[in-house]
Amino acid sequence: VTTQHIVHSFDKELRKLESNIAVMGGLAETQLADAIEVMLQRDSERAAQVAAQDTRIDALEEQINQQVVRLLALRQPVAVDLRVALAALKISADLERIGDYAKNIAKRTRTLTESASVAQAMTIGRMGRLVQGMIKDVLDAFANRDVAKAEDVRIRDEEVDALHTSLFRELLTYMMEDARAITPCTHLLFVAKNIERIGDHATNIAESVHFMVEGSLPLDERPKHDASSFTTVDADDNEEGGGG
Amino acid sequence: VTTQHIVHSFDKELRKLESNIAVMGGLAETQLADAIEVMLQRDSERAAQVAAQDTRIDALEEQINQQVVRLLALRQPVAVDLRVALAALKISADLERIGDYAKNIAKRTRTLTESASVAQAMTIGRMGRLVQGMIKDVLDAFANRDVAKAEDVRIRDEEVDALHTSLFRELLTYMMEDARAITPCTHLLFVAKNIERIGDHATNIAESVHFMVEGSLPLDERPKHDASSFTTVDADDNEEGGGG
Repeated sequence: VTTQHIVHSFDKELRKLESNIAVMGGLAETQLADAIEVMLQRDSERAAQVAAQDTRIDALEEQINQQVVRLLALRQPVAVDLRVALAALKISADLERIGDYAKNIAKRTRTLTESASVAQAMTIGRMGRLVQGMIKDVLDAFANRDVAKAEDVRIRDEEVDALHTSLFRELLTYMMEDARAITPCTHLLFVAKNIERIGDHATNIAESVHFMVEGSLPLDERPKHDASSFTTVDADDNEEGGGG
Repeated sequence: VTTQHIVHSFDKELRKLESNIAVMGGLAETQLADAIEVMLQRDSERAAQVAAQDTRIDALEEQINQQVVRLLALRQPVAVDLRVALAALKISADLERIGDYAKNIAKRTRTLTESASVAQAMTIGRMGRLVQGMIKDVLDAFANRDVAKAEDVRIRDEEVDALHTSLFRELLTYMMEDARAITPCTHLLFVAKNIERIGDHATNIAESVHFMVEGSLPLDERPKHDASSFTTVDADDNEEGGGG
């Protein structure tokens, strides 16, 4: 009976840990959706509220950290239970970063003027929806220990990277055509970069799910399609270079 | 004798883990110093070599991860030993990110032309030396379990943030004066942001050292002085706004 009792409450603690990850993931997902919405609507007032939501995500990370330390110290789990605890530690760190990036997107709202074009806003909206879907699906993959679904999320990050690179080039071109666009477009470059990084963190979470279920990381390196670090646009003729 | 043997080899494993963190930290430090050097010298050829060094850092992270999982599963450490293992897991993730940012700095070398001014290059060099010092000192703090030294690193990150904000404003102004500067200065903005983020990771490591030694995180939130997300420069009169 005592052994059964210990097993039972250990199981309960693990489930609690998993549900905290689900709650934290839901908050990060909402934070990102809200941040992109207020940014695209240039709603500086709501932007400040959205940025402030991040404290709940930070508090949950701290709570999950403490849960994992307690679980490891008192229960000393092995095999898959140990890997769930370690995955929760890593995933909560990724979700905390996602919340930070979303907060930063909301913060940049007040630097944006009307001058950034509709086309670029649409691309940012599309990138945002893509990574929101990735976060949602990778959290489902974690909850259901679904390696195939996690792998699918990793693959989808390529589209985010490709969109980011093309948006980078567009924004540079736009800045060259109109000096007044330089400040807002620079902030849009960082917004786009933040979304691209959020995609990378969703990919990290997918790898943690793989590790949790299989006991090893995915064997293949994910192909990187973000070529923005090499992308140049020439001011004299607006011809495109780089992007290799 | 058997118990002594177990204690002895457990201790050996912990020391091995700590020395791997020291090696990984040294590599990240070198990677950053080299990346900034080749970038400032516009040495595209060496930049590719520097970017390639990152694979050794990635391999070490994977090795440390495996060591920690094995240690937790087989030795089931408690108290400070458990915290050392968990700190090693977190610190290796931070060092991996530092390596990634340094790699990205090296990659951007080939987008830079002569047009970025000497003043900005000097500021980037200064930011780079500051964060290199932070990485070095926080690794010493880890090796010597020195909370005071870790706290000192956290404080120094404020200077990095302040330099980053002023450089952000300078680069925007420069881009408005000369459209040919837009592409290289945009990449310099991301180089500066990468260095600022490396400072944040050194700060994270300082917090891991605090947790490892004290069993809790530092109580005070570190004040953030990076105001670049709010910084705007107006193209019409080059007057500065934002920065609050």
